[in-house]
Amino acid sequence: MRPSARAADMMRPVEIMPGVNPYAEGSALVKFGATHVLVTASVEERVPPFLRGKGEGWVTAEYGMLPRATHTRGEREAARGRQSGRTQEIQRLIGRSLRTLTNLKALGERQITIDCDVLQADGGTRTAAISGGWVALRLALDALHARTPFATDPLPLQVAAVSCGVHEGTPVLDLDYAEDVAAHTDANFVLASDGRIIEVQATAEKEPMDEEVLLRLLRLARIGCDEIFAAQRKATGR
Amino acid sequence: MRPSARAADMMRPVEIMPGVNPYAEGSALVKFGATHVLVTASVEERVPPFLRGKGEGWVTAEYGMLPRATHTRGEREAARGRQSGRTQEIQRLIGRSLRTLTNLKALGERQITIDCDVLQADGGTRTAAISGGWVALRLALDALHARTPFATDPLPLQVAAVSCGVHEGTPVLDLDYAEDVAAHTDANFVLASDGRIIEVQATAEKEPMDEEVLLRLLRLARIGCDEIFAAQRKATGR
Amino acid sequence: MRPSARAADMMRPVEIMPGVNPYAEGSALVKFGATHVLVTASVEERVPPFLRGKGEGWVTAEYGMLPRATHTRGEREAARGRQSGRTQEIQRLIGRSLRTLTNLKALGERQITIDCDVLQADGGTRTAAISGGWVALRLALDALHARTPFATDPLPLQVAAVSCGVHEGTPVLDLDYAEDVAAHTDANFVLASDGRIIEVQATAEKEPMDEEVLLRLLRLARIGCDEIFAAQRKATGR
Amino acid sequence: MRPSARAADMMRPVEIMPGVNPYAEGSALVKFGATHVLVTASVEERVPPFLRGKGEGWVTAEYGMLPRATHTRGEREAARGRQSGRTQEIQRLIGRSLRTLTNLKALGERQITIDCDVLQADGGTRTAAISGGWVALRLALDALHARTPFATDPLPLQVAAVSCGVHEGTPVLDLDYAEDVAAHTDANFVLASDGRIIEVQATAEKEPMDEEVLLRLLRLARIGCDEIFAAQRKATGR
Amino acid sequence: MRPSARAADMMRPVEIMPGVNPYAEGSALVKFGATHVLVTASVEERVPPFLRGKGEGWVTAEYGMLPRATHTRGEREAARGRQSGRTQEIQRLIGRSLRTLTNLKALGERQITIDCDVLQADGGTRTAAISGGWVALRLALDALHARTPFATDPLPLQVAAVSCGVHEGTPVLDLDYAEDVAAHTDANFVLASDGRIIEVQATAEKEPMDEEVLLRLLRLARIGCDEIFAAQRKATGR
Amino acid sequence: MRPSARAADMMRPVEIMPGVNPYAEGSALVKFGATHVLVTASVEERVPPFLRGKGEGWVTAEYGMLPRATHTRGEREAARGRQSGRTQEIQRLIGRSLRTLTNLKALGERQITIDCDVLQADGGTRTAAISGGWVALRLALDALHARTPFATDPLPLQVAAVSCGVHEGTPVLDLDYAEDVAAHTDANFVLASDGRIIEVQATAEKEPMDEEVLLRLLRLARIGCDEIFAAQRKATGR
Repeated sequence: MRPSARAADMMRPVEIMPGVNPYAEGSALVKFGATHVLVTASVEERVPPFLRGKGEGWVTAEYGMLPRATHTRGEREAARGRQSGRTQEIQRLIGRSLRTLTNLKALGERQITIDCDVLQADGGTRTAAISGGWVALRLALDALHARTPFATDPLPLQVAAVSCGVHEGTPVLDLDYAEDVAAHTDANFVLASDGRIIEVQATAEKEPMDEEVLLRLLRLARIGCDEIFAAQRKATGR
Repeated sequence: MRPSARAADMMRPVEIMPGVNPYAEGSALVKFGATHVLVTASVEERVPPFLRGKGEGWVTAEYGMLPRATHTRGEREAARGRQSGRTQEIQRLIGRSLRTLTNLKALGERQITIDCDVLQADGGTRTAAISGGWVALRLALDALHARTPFATDPLPLQVAAVSCGVHEGTPVLDLDYAEDVAAHTDANFVLASDGRIIEVQATAEKEPMDEEVLLRLLRLARIGCDEIFAAQRKATGR
Repeated sequence: MRPSARAADMMRPVEIMPGVNPYAEGSALVKFGATHVLVTASVEERVPPFLRGKGEGWVTAEYGMLPRATHTRGEREAARGRQSGRTQEIQRLIGRSLRTLTNLKALGERQITIDCDVLQADGGTRTAAISGGWVALRLALDALHARTPFATDPLPLQVAAVSCGVHEGTPVLDLDYAEDVAAHTDANFVLASDGRIIEVQATAEKEPMDEEVLLRLLRLARIGCDEIFAAQRKATGR
Repeated sequence: MRPSARAADMMRPVEIMPGVNPYAEGSALVKFGATHVLVTASVEERVPPFLRGKGEGWVTAEYGMLPRATHTRGEREAARGRQSGRTQEIQRLIGRSLRTLTNLKALGERQITIDCDVLQADGGTRTAAISGGWVALRLALDALHARTPFATDPLPLQVAAVSCGVHEGTPVLDLDYAEDVAAHTDANFVLASDGRIIEVQATAEKEPMDEEVLLRLLRLARIGCDEIFAAQRKATGR
Repeated sequence: MRPSARAADMMRPVEIMPGVNPYAEGSALVKFGATHVLVTASVEERVPPFLRGKGEGWVTAEYGMLPRATHTRGEREAARGRQSGRTQEIQRLIGRSLRTLTNLKALGERQITIDCDVLQADGGTRTAAISGGWVALRLALDALHARTPFATDPLPLQVAAVSCGVHEGTPVLDLDYAEDVAAHTDANFVLASDGRIIEVQATAEKEPMDEEVLLRLLRLARIGCDEIFAAQRKATGR
Repeated sequence: MRPSARAADMMRPVEIMPGVNPYAEGSALVKFGATHVLVTASVEERVPPFLRGKGEGWVTAEYGMLPRATHTRGEREAARGRQSGRTQEIQRLIGRSLRTLTNLKALGERQITIDCDVLQADGGTRTAAISGGWVALRLALDALHARTPFATDPLPLQVAAVSCGVHEGTPVLDLDYAEDVAAHTDANFVLASDGRIIEVQATAEKEPMDEEVLLRLLRLARIGCDEIFAAQRKATGR
């Protein structure tokens, strides 16, 4: 039995509230159970130096966690003066995941920054951020399109992500914090809505895993992402 | 006429939602119109080095703003590697304001950290943070009291804060962003619920002010704080 | 009786020595009793990016304290790698105070930086810095004027500042360090020479104050600033 | 045809020179073709604060690249004042990979730090670092064992890593720099010598991948790691 | 002819005003012409970690320059967030020079920090700082001795320093800024009052020097230091 | 008897392996006994801002030490977030030493950066770095010359450096670590191949030195540098 009493292939309730921020071009509050992430997409009509004049756009992400998003208060990164290795790893993953499916030429010379701020953390913050990040990005593109239609939609597919793990010998979907702490293996999958794989990060923290376990975790991730894809479509009216 | 079409002595709608964070000992989401600040109070059973062994507690505050809390995206302080002078000034003000009315001996050797994170900014974030901070602090003290009753209540009075300013020659209460930008004078008042003054920060950005203006602004602040005190009592069940 | 044995409305000896630095366009060594601040005004024929091409100038300030300006040695901020929140708060106050009365259009596209370095600290360093900063700024403007006359004087009024506080129940003028440590309330006033108020920062560190106390402190500040205005006129030959 | 003219399942020449540093408890110079990484293992008879008194040891890693390890000179991280997100991500991966197979209780309360410094980079520096890191760690454990025998060997299995990718539609083993730049997918596999998987990091930079591709890359990684395991055994005399 | 119109072996006027800081255990304002350095010696009854429990003391130094100590304003190191390489090099030199002649066992387990802050810079700030640093250190030791006599004087000899250089082919003593800029060679000598050499830092910035030139510069330094030794004795009443 | 059992005027074996880095325009691995420094020279067709448009080039240096280059592991400077004062002092010395003999006009508007990374440290790393730095710089200039001949050779002379010291009363050449720790005096000499002096840094750490000792150390340095000049010529085929 999982600590959450969920079946092995059962997600926590997934909720994505679109348009929660009045200023951002796109935004969403994404909830995977008690994990709540506020995501905004900010459009700027300029690109980083390495892309100037190339007729391409850029998508990047930043990630942060409020100090008391967790059971015990963590240090504020702005006060400490630097982002942790974990934070940088996560924001690089979010940016990469959303960029892979974006047609940067179709986007044109503009940058979209996805800010993911964790209000409450109960495991799976990075996968919730990617899943909500897609909604914020999609809404920002819709807003741009409404002003000046894109010839080609820069983001024809959806991106969702979920974490899976092995809990007391059983592969399970969507680890919450209590399960994550106890899990032997933690695997984050980022999937496209056509079934292809964007990123796999599978880590055996305590005990290496067999190949079949990796495949079983991928099966579970497909189940979870299908549910997230549905929530994304509902949030964006697609 | 104010940009907000409010009367000179009219607050924006004030709303304080208590207990919004499931982990913090005290928390509140405070709204002054479109200004939304998430506040948590975190209790630690230790004090800073300079207080060790003195039988006294400490109250301190940290402040941050999500990058897209404003009309245009601001740089993330954690990414830039340091807190701005403005941020430090604000968090010092919040901590000082809440500490003044706290009986630190009655609190005992523990530290309470008030984290104020601005989700949306439409002017007056520091005064909303102080006002909501009092609720989070009060709720944390109530939680501590429920576990082990205090002999003396460490926080017998309320603390509220509001900004006032001179807009096109007229002193007005509770500046929103559009009014703040245009105001000649910006004054933040922190008041105790017995009417006494905890802090005044009145700044003439463009034109010095006469003494009567300062007094008129204080009158307005009293009106605003009375409304905030009522919202605080409602939020904390007092 | 005050620790300094002064009457409640009595300043420490105020001395402002102009032109102490051979390189700066304007400079002054200002003494409020044992508080000594070396101030220089440096003119640069360029403005910060946000003002470029607007035909306006800028006045800004930086503040520092020598490590052994105080009774016990403090850490050198350059060695620690960052300015404290207190330092940033003070230098923002100095810059704002001097800028309010400066006609930035009349100044033209140039920046004047006021560096305030505390050689000895015995309370009131920020108010001494503002008061001496006006002299350095005035002398720098006089030097610019001698080279190329201004059509309009960019600084027609004087700026002075002084701290007041409540010591053992009595409002007193110009707190020295021993009085500051013991004071219940610390209020810094920045005044223009026409009697108007530029900035009020009144803080009740231990006990909130009544409105009449605030007004009494302002009365004292007017007395002190009149004496400083006279010293400024003497130092600048006005 | 690959830029390197190698067959799809062919490694670059793998060479591991043990004991190259006269001071470190364990060391190796590992070469995957023109990628050269100098690895040292340093033993300290203390553990990080979170492990004190628990009777367990710790294995951690740091990674760096000489400024001219690459075709064009990169900025020196020590001069810039911080490690890049990429560096932190890599050193976290190396530490995690070597820690997973280490019996930390058998190691006892000591820390082993694996320093991986890239002298020349031609792709695959992180996987070379992990593979050479195992040798340095093994030699350090052998040195400790020679002084005071371990009751249980803390590292009974080997750890090796290799990168695979899809080059012009063909899954290939051990990407060099020219291939890495052109690859659509980049996957790093960390494997144990009993065939189990320690970590998978598969990233589709330009085009998502099908599940079969992921599995094919894993097949290739097994081929490559077998060769590395052999080189490790030769280097450590096992 | 030197820019300063001095003879080749002529110092600028040397003046050392002792006891200028009311708080420091020892202090001096040292002037080499228009170069003015404020030096304080601060005693702390503790030593750095590496000396704890060894019965020895420590002497260290820090160096800073006010932003407008020079013809054009320099960046404030505290604002920039780090000390320059030049600053670190100088403060290491000052500390080392004063430490060499100090009997650290006789000093006992205490640390003396020499803070050297340049109020005005016209060349030779590091040598003025060392020369004034000796006075501040000597006065601090005298103050300690007055309280609890030392069995052995920890500082039986004097330390002085001066810079020499080759100006238009002629070796000259005590370079001022105009001469320093034009000099081919810049040599700083730190000498003990018994004629021995504590440190030589001779740098040929534009043209290597012959051995005889180095010796001639040393001769000049002896002349200059004799004058400084006399000023030190006068300042300390020896 | 020296710890190294060498005669007072005997160098450790000097070996300079040219062209060890496949990417850098010039490179060398220099060994003074067990001190091994990897040096690269990187050419960039741009100059620092202060030289732009002046028709002159620049030579600069950076220095680093691998964490386990020494008997005990040192902190990684990139991880700590700043270069130590020692590192900055050394890299400034290396850059200055190589720049003095370079005809920057003949070099033209390009910058050459000399990176010196210590793989193993047994004393004398800065002098080995300068000596090997000359080889890397020479090879880079030869490579530039092969592409587009220089009208005037920018580096007609050689630069070598060696450290000398007083060990148990005897002046000795080329201190290794064991000797350096015990030495009373440590002097680094940078010499040109025509016998002139580029830099002298002589420091009496424990006991001031007599003038004759300084001269004796210079004599020894000449002997050592002659040997290094020969090794440089062999490494560069001159």
